[in-house]
Amino acid sequence: MGTTPTASTEASRLARQGNDRALREAPDLPAMFDRYREHLENALAAAVPPLEGHAVNALLRYHLGWPDRTGTPAATPASQGKALRPTLCMFACHALQGDPARAAPAAAALELIHNFSLVHDDIQDQGMERRHQPTVWAVWGTEQALVAGDAMQSLGDLSALNVGGSAPPDTTIRVSQLLTQSYLEMIEGQCRDLEFERREVIASDEYLDMIALKTGALIRSSMVIGATIATHDIETLEGVARFGRAIGRLFQIRDDYLGIWGDEAITGKSTDSDIVQRKKSYPIVCAFQHAEGANRDELLRLYAQEELDEDDVNHVLNILDDLGADRQTDELTEATAEEGRAALALLELPPWAAEDAKNLIDFMAYRLF
Amino acid sequence: MGTTPTASTEASRLARQGNDRALREAPDLPAMFDRYREHLENALAAAVPPLEGHAVNALLRYHLGWPDRTGTPAATPASQGKALRPTLCMFACHALQGDPARAAPAAAALELIHNFSLVHDDIQDQGMERRHQPTVWAVWGTEQALVAGDAMQSLGDLSALNVGGSAPPDTTIRVSQLLTQSYLEMIEGQCRDLEFERREVIASDEYLDMIALKTGALIRSSMVIGATIATHDIETLEGVARFGRAIGRLFQIRDDYLGIWGDEAITGKSTDSDIVQRKKSYPIVCAFQHAEGANRDELLRLYAQEELDEDDVNHVLNILDDLGADRQTDELTEATAEEGRAALALLELPPWAAEDAKNLIDFMAYRLF
Repeated sequence: MGTTPTASTEASRLARQGNDRALREAPDLPAMFDRYREHLENALAAAVPPLEGHAVNALLRYHLGWPDRTGTPAATPASQGKALRPTLCMFACHALQGDPARAAPAAAALELIHNFSLVHDDIQDQGMERRHQPTVWAVWGTEQALVAGDAMQSLGDLSALNVGGSAPPDTTIRVSQLLTQSYLEMIEGQCRDLEFERREVIASDEYLDMIALKTGALIRSSMVIGATIATHDIETLEGVARFGRAIGRLFQIRDDYLGIWGDEAITGKSTDSDIVQRKKSYPIVCAFQHAEGANRDELLRLYAQEELDEDDVNHVLNILDDLGADRQTDELTEATAEEGRAALALLELPPWAAEDAKNLIDFMAYRLF
Repeated sequence: MGTTPTASTEASRLARQGNDRALREAPDLPAMFDRYREHLENALAAAVPPLEGHAVNALLRYHLGWPDRTGTPAATPASQGKALRPTLCMFACHALQGDPARAAPAAAALELIHNFSLVHDDIQDQGMERRHQPTVWAVWGTEQALVAGDAMQSLGDLSALNVGGSAPPDTTIRVSQLLTQSYLEMIEGQCRDLEFERREVIASDEYLDMIALKTGALIRSSMVIGATIATHDIETLEGVARFGRAIGRLFQIRDDYLGIWGDEAITGKSTDSDIVQRKKSYPIVCAFQHAEGANRDELLRLYAQEELDEDDVNHVLNILDDLGADRQTDELTEATAEEGRAALALLELPPWAAEDAKNLIDFMAYRLF
């Protein structure tokens, strides 16, 4: 197998980005991501108070980017990320004529559950940095990070149970059940993902099932929980679940795309890293599924190594090019966006919300960050 | 410092046990521990179903002693332990004229939360064996054990939310809140305990605060949750909380006693192990607090070592003898049993339940296993 020099790989990457951009303008972050931020921040602050003498809360507040590791409030709070899940929750409630403020404790719960999984993920992956600061386990050690993650999960549960302040008890129970069931799905997905790491080849269906659990479940349930606070209409809730399922898959598949072909300067992540880390993301799973002969032997050899160097990464990129893995990833994104649009068409939303939901699909499908 | 030979230490240990026994008959396991077992087993089986294709459930069922690690049901199920927390929960409900079956999902939740903490504890302590079988992390690795613990916690939450089948929604929410708050206390206790490991000297008050969180909170809330399913009377619930607090402290302090002076053949645990592991349990904390001069220097030297050999263990036992740490532990046990009896006297229970509760205090205070 000859290797193509880096320059041409880079050129092919740029050409691909050029094509993307020629087809459509890169979407901005939809307005909904700012609209509910204040509600969320208040609910989060209430859910993780700076309790005197509570050793564990200090770790949680550090992870959330509030005080630095010495406990003094950060001068510039660390980046909080997009807060995707809480935003979806409050938007779904709002779009169905509910008061988004009523969904704020549940939204905070979703953000805490997401963050609990990040704290434990960082232990598992031995990740040293998260949101531009050292990870919890890197500062306090594995044992403390383990209990900090457990505490984050519990505070999430409690915040969801506090929905009761503004909702009937039946709704509160339903919200807590939806939340717990979805993070059980998330955990099952983590479990399968760990199992995949030890396997050579994963079928793309298996991969899609895994991400539907690992990242999809919490995203889908974010929308269903928000909707549940606004309405009990079963047909509407099922429609929201279908829409949320598409958003969840879009999020992960686009993440997988950007993890290989994204622009580092825009994503803020190294685009090598998914390949360097030998992550079996969707493009790689596709490549393994379709590779034959020399390409297949080469992929198996490369992914059997402990580490991939720059040449290896270029090898992988070339094989992905050969097999059209980028096109296949784009096709799945497009098909999933269509599923989202179809689900949306069946929901009766006010025009502003329908427009917002359409923008959300476009952002999820075509975002560059 | 001279060391006393092992034989005399052993003789002093036997003499102490002899004294104990002369004072009172060793109590049997109270009847309540058998009475609710079937309810519990059914509720647990419902809470952790053997789901096809759910990788994580298999790990949980293994930890609970149901199938062996290959997934086939164990011929003789592994020992389940006393099931203290669920028993207390169903007893409290029953004693206050509630139907204990209605408390079964909450009881199962408590057992699952307790077991989630064991799965994570085993990771932290690198414990290889639990209930006569290899621990989850020892079989599947740290990463899988971490997510298995998370899943156990979630299934516990879900089981608590299922109390709703037989209770009004307000009660279900209250039960879930009590459960979550108490395992947050448990987690805070774990966090402090980890911090203690890195410190030389711990004041006995600090130690008592820590165990009130780490083991006390879940035991206390087991009783309060059971009571909440039977009654909403605030005075009664406060009385049950006082009683439960005493039971929680008794449990831990007696455990600490048996961890040093218990009879290995009866407890099933090595009595060296608390000292060998340099656990700062109550007798050791007392000794550090009261030791002066040579005893103090010796304790500091011994506990600064990485490992303690047999001679070191005997050294520690002699110092504990010198300082009367066994007597101090017994005195705290007795004072706590009195607190439990005082709390009980204020609760209006039917005679059978008052008798059971009295036996429970005696068992917790004077048990040999």
